[in-house]
Amino acid sequence: MTLTAASTTATSFNLGSARALSCRECGHEIPLAPEFACPQCFGPLEVAYDFPEITRASIEAGPKSIWRYRQLLPVPTDVTRHPNTEPGLTRLIKADRLAAALGVRSLWVKDDTGNPTHSFKDRVVAVALAAARELGFSVLACPSTGNLANAVAAAAARAGWDSVVLIPSSLEQAKILTTAVYGGTLLAVEGNYDDVNRLATELAAEHEDWAFVNVNVRPYYAEGSKTLGYEVAEQLGWRLPGQVVVPVASGSQLTKVDKGFQELGKLGLVEPTPYRVFGAQATGCSPVSKAFADGLDVVQPVRPDTIARSLAIGNPADGPYVLDAVRRTGGAVADVSDEEVVEGIRLLARTEGVFAETAGGVTVATAKKLVETGQLDPDAETVLLITGDGLKTLDAVSGRVGPTATVPASSKAVREALAARHG
Amino acid sequence: MTLTAASTTATSFNLGSARALSCRECGHEIPLAPEFACPQCFGPLEVAYDFPEITRASIEAGPKSIWRYRQLLPVPTDVTRHPNTEPGLTRLIKADRLAAALGVRSLWVKDDTGNPTHSFKDRVVAVALAAARELGFSVLACPSTGNLANAVAAAAARAGWDSVVLIPSSLEQAKILTTAVYGGTLLAVEGNYDDVNRLATELAAEHEDWAFVNVNVRPYYAEGSKTLGYEVAEQLGWRLPGQVVVPVASGSQLTKVDKGFQELGKLGLVEPTPYRVFGAQATGCSPVSKAFADGLDVVQPVRPDTIARSLAIGNPADGPYVLDAVRRTGGAVADVSDEEVVEGIRLLARTEGVFAETAGGVTVATAKKLVETGQLDPDAETVLLITGDGLKTLDAVSGRVGPTATVPASSKAVREALAARHG
Repeated sequence: MTLTAASTTATSFNLGSARALSCRECGHEIPLAPEFACPQCFGPLEVAYDFPEITRASIEAGPKSIWRYRQLLPVPTDVTRHPNTEPGLTRLIKADRLAAALGVRSLWVKDDTGNPTHSFKDRVVAVALAAARELGFSVLACPSTGNLANAVAAAAARAGWDSVVLIPSSLEQAKILTTAVYGGTLLAVEGNYDDVNRLATELAAEHEDWAFVNVNVRPYYAEGSKTLGYEVAEQLGWRLPGQVVVPVASGSQLTKVDKGFQELGKLGLVEPTPYRVFGAQATGCSPVSKAFADGLDVVQPVRPDTIARSLAIGNPADGPYVLDAVRRTGGAVADVSDEEVVEGIRLLARTEGVFAETAGGVTVATAKKLVETGQLDPDAETVLLITGDGLKTLDAVSGRVGPTATVPASSKAVREALAARHG
Repeated sequence: MTLTAASTTATSFNLGSARALSCRECGHEIPLAPEFACPQCFGPLEVAYDFPEITRASIEAGPKSIWRYRQLLPVPTDVTRHPNTEPGLTRLIKADRLAAALGVRSLWVKDDTGNPTHSFKDRVVAVALAAARELGFSVLACPSTGNLANAVAAAAARAGWDSVVLIPSSLEQAKILTTAVYGGTLLAVEGNYDDVNRLATELAAEHEDWAFVNVNVRPYYAEGSKTLGYEVAEQLGWRLPGQVVVPVASGSQLTKVDKGFQELGKLGLVEPTPYRVFGAQATGCSPVSKAFADGLDVVQPVRPDTIARSLAIGNPADGPYVLDAVRRTGGAVADVSDEEVVEGIRLLARTEGVFAETAGGVTVATAKKLVETGQLDPDAETVLLITGDGLKTLDAVSGRVGPTATVPASSKAVREALAARHG
């Protein structure tokens, strides 16, 4: 999509404190519009703001969802007047048992499986939809193989919008059901995920009322991830953690959590204490981890081969910005094998009762590795972001866990089984 | 379990405002103890309280979980000091699109899929564990085929307790995984669910440190469902809805939501406005609905045959109390076919973006039927309780929903597919 008459008069859009779109490469600013690439250098655009004075009290008095931070997001000030999925304000739990297992002193788990469709995608999609409405779109769309498809179809259903979700036709039946149930348009595309993505870009250019959340309204969409950072800080009692470990797919989430922490400091909502940001990848798709290890500023694309499919982006758009954030804060990016991913899922479940999808296993296992290598300070307060649900990736634990014993229906048999186990 | 020395000195237990266990049949009171049947008449015991003065402000300033109501629950006052799953405070969403589809004026959906293991069972299990700790137990146990197994295993893992979960050995692999992942003791019992239940009662009597949440600590466990009522009232702005539709399995949840509403009125936290309570069952397991229709006070057990397995209790312990509550408030109990259950799931998903398990389909479809029969007042504000997650009962929608179309990866093909759909 190119600059149109509509977008040059875009200052009339009511997107709260959002002032403009700003190029992350050259700093050029354009008015708020459904654009994602800088007209001067083709760099990625992000939302720039003129924040009003914001107090902790006003946030705490707000809705029990991401909309308590609406003044910090590119959404209309009356965003809560429209039906939406009301994501966010998920649990931040003190994870003492996992901390002991990892050998760190103070650990928290941000459990984003509590969102409406059980992943952090509900946050970004809710922001995308709110911005898209104001920008004049009427259909919510995405290419996806999993969490994003669920989130888009559910959010559109709730808002009374049409949705168009593109999936590879080879997708497993269970993943098709969990999107199709919401009743939008679900197109099974003959091809792989790259083909689906290319088609999405093509369709975004052709259908001016279709908001592809991660394409033509991506700058707005991506801002939704800042709310993970805001919530962590508020739930810690309005302070920043010493360290945060974030899974890296496109890399957008990590950069936005960092941005969120910085904004809170600048606005005086927290003390701007130093923090370190760590990225977690699966070895089977670890281009950012590799670039970090090699000391590079650019990320070489890879062909993904990992069970952590929700992180399997071989050419991560925000890879360079992840490297910036991690190096600026004194963090690191590391990666773990699929075997370690499964162990990470199991460790989190049996210590904290949180059943994460493979991406969560990546985060936990990477945190473990970073402690072992001395890159994660075991004495600094640490937060792990668990961004998706184990119910969606049951295959990862299939064959790995099962009944302790199979017994006849008698208490004697139970006693014997338990004695055999403990004996 | 009989009255022991421990339980006769039970007044020393710190269970907050809980004063005693009181028989629901004869009113006899015994001190707080791990008992569930009246020593005089064998009627079911429930928790009686001496509530302190409680204000809305003190609740609102409390934790963002069920523990904001801890003074109204049989738990130690310092309950939040121990690691727990922190369930509750799930979304209450205004459901205008579903309201329009059902032909009612003002409708809300309480979406309890946002709980840690995605069902309301996290509420009751959290209360059971907190009480069990104080009562001297050290193992959390249950017989279950689904949501309860998940909730018990997760809560025990988080608390650092051992768990013993009994399941029929024929249970589907996916349901085994979602409990086994938490790493407790999972016993696959050769037999049907009745055999498993009998074994649980036997084991509860033999192992004095095992708290079977729905057997020997059932009076405490059941109180957790009151929090659904408290939250609905608080989230409506501290008032009671005109009507509430609750799925009926054992019937406990419905009676506790009613009890919660009454307590709020008595404590002056809401105006004690009249409300009507409705029960929802699947026709394939509808003993309470049948008793209601027949004007009976007793419930004839049935052999369940329905896809709504989480409601498939053929001999519901609280059936008579459901009939009492429903008749006292001017409500009703009704039932719907499995076909209607699936339609209910789909209707809720496509209008509100909430993907419920079969029990949620029962609630929505029953509400629809009750409107059609004139039993539910379309002009009164109504709340539907959605208590479990569609990801756990994918079979219900399998073969019913799927892609709109399968297309080659070209925008032309997409246009044609959409034209064919709308044409």
